[in-house]
Amino acid sequence: MAVISVGTMAFDAIETPFGKIDKIVGGSGTYVAYAASHLTNPIQQISIVGDDFPGEEMDELKARGVALSGVEIVPDQKSFFWSGKYHLDMNTRDTLITDLNVLANFNPKVPEEYQGAEFLMLGNLMPSLQLSVIEQLRKRPKLIVLDTMNFWMETAMDDLKKVLQKVDALLINDSEARQLSGEFSLVKSAKKILQLGPKYLIIKKGEHGALLFHQEHVFFAPALPLEDVFDPTGAGDAFAGGFIGHLSHTNDTSFENMKTAIIVGSAMASFCVEKFGPQRLKEISKKDIDLRLEQFVQLVNFDIALV
Amino acid sequence: MAVISVGTMAFDAIETPFGKIDKIVGGSGTYVAYAASHLTNPIQQISIVGDDFPGEEMDELKARGVALSGVEIVPDQKSFFWSGKYHLDMNTRDTLITDLNVLANFNPKVPEEYQGAEFLMLGNLMPSLQLSVIEQLRKRPKLIVLDTMNFWMETAMDDLKKVLQKVDALLINDSEARQLSGEFSLVKSAKKILQLGPKYLIIKKGEHGALLFHQEHVFFAPALPLEDVFDPTGAGDAFAGGFIGHLSHTNDTSFENMKTAIIVGSAMASFCVEKFGPQRLKEISKKDIDLRLEQFVQLVNFDIALV
Repeated sequence: MAVISVGTMAFDAIETPFGKIDKIVGGSGTYVAYAASHLTNPIQQISIVGDDFPGEEMDELKARGVALSGVEIVPDQKSFFWSGKYHLDMNTRDTLITDLNVLANFNPKVPEEYQGAEFLMLGNLMPSLQLSVIEQLRKRPKLIVLDTMNFWMETAMDDLKKVLQKVDALLINDSEARQLSGEFSLVKSAKKILQLGPKYLIIKKGEHGALLFHQEHVFFAPALPLEDVFDPTGAGDAFAGGFIGHLSHTNDTSFENMKTAIIVGSAMASFCVEKFGPQRLKEISKKDIDLRLEQFVQLVNFDIALV
Repeated sequence: MAVISVGTMAFDAIETPFGKIDKIVGGSGTYVAYAASHLTNPIQQISIVGDDFPGEEMDELKARGVALSGVEIVPDQKSFFWSGKYHLDMNTRDTLITDLNVLANFNPKVPEEYQGAEFLMLGNLMPSLQLSVIEQLRKRPKLIVLDTMNFWMETAMDDLKKVLQKVDALLINDSEARQLSGEFSLVKSAKKILQLGPKYLIIKKGEHGALLFHQEHVFFAPALPLEDVFDPTGAGDAFAGGFIGHLSHTNDTSFENMKTAIIVGSAMASFCVEKFGPQRLKEISKKDIDLRLEQFVQLVNFDIALV
């Protein structure tokens, strides 16, 4: 099934305790596309870049089944640039630079050939832009997944609340869940947030895994314990790409299948952090993914009949 | 199978963001005994108290199959007292007061009738005392589990290393694992620590669950997401009690059964935090425990065949 993915395509500069890179391709849309393209196609990308965005990167995405007719290329302007530095725990980071560049005038347009897509991944963007994409779709997708961040909670809460009422699943991290709900307990946070619209809430906890809430149900997916987390940038987006990629591939949005999708998302995130940028997501094969999924089974599998 | 449990029996004063209590029965040995007694018997307690320790608490423990002939009661002295205050995240706390009292002269003696026990739980104590208990046992237990803390790593590392060479399983939290190994990555920590003697390493991460390492294997048990964590005091000890209690009950120390034991430990910890002190561990029934274990199954169960 087709997945429309709306998100940034950008350059990042990243500093971690283990290394530093001055300029590497990044952006939430880029990570989502690379991760999801391992599982399903087409990925129908909506984004905006300057004329500095590498043509080889576009070619690489196309070769993986990512449609780019929704990616606007603005001449004589620069792509969005983000620079950040990670703390030793790799779960927290400081943003050093945010140069919006082309993103300042982003007005996402859904190309005619994207109409009819069954899945929609709304990457972290200004909520009014996320809303505009939903409104442009003549047929409502089977599943709409939304990512957002604390910045929009502080500056555009009214619009965020509007878009929350129109989505099926919300994907945020633990501190964002606490901020959105005003509750410290994630269980209490989830109860409040599920009243804002989404039927499913996924709370990402970085190296501590992710929780899926739906009605009275809760499911927990661990992060894979890794020897080295090299660069966490994009891990949440790779998670989102794996999640919606699996749901689209199986065309099954049941709660049971969402659990599996979260494990697939966790697997894609575990690859993502192994190298700088989206590099590792480009290298991995179907076999690598299958082996990693088996590691997740081993990681949490226990026999309660022994009690 | 009999479990010898060596640990403190004490009074605590606890302050959490949700309440405050000036004096309540606590101590690692108390929590281990209450948790383990739901699963197996006898629990053969080794500890020391002053004459202020409540007779009703002793009676309650006895009624649950906890042998107390190894608990020394020192006349005219006070029991160990600990006071602490939890931060909002409940994963970190400040110790406000530590009055050793009787603990200053603790010299654990294994009663003759405890000889032959198959399981030994060495609660967090001065490593030389832990070593002395092992040396007093004429038959080596089938499984020796050790708890320790950063204080002993800083003040008694040589003794700690000696006792590590004599135990099967080490139970510590994430910051202690990092301190003991000098590695930030828990996977790297585990590799180093498993070279110090223990064949099994359990790293407790509080609300983020627990990891079991053995050779090249790793297993992850989540903590149950709770609406309210009322008081985390003793959760790690309840975990230990559930863990060794299950292993003793089943008399099976295989890696597979240790996974289940860690889930049982997590279940006991999840009860422990619901009320101040060991109160909740006294209230729960076999049925409560079975229901909670089923919640853990639901929490992590997924169908990878769907991929």
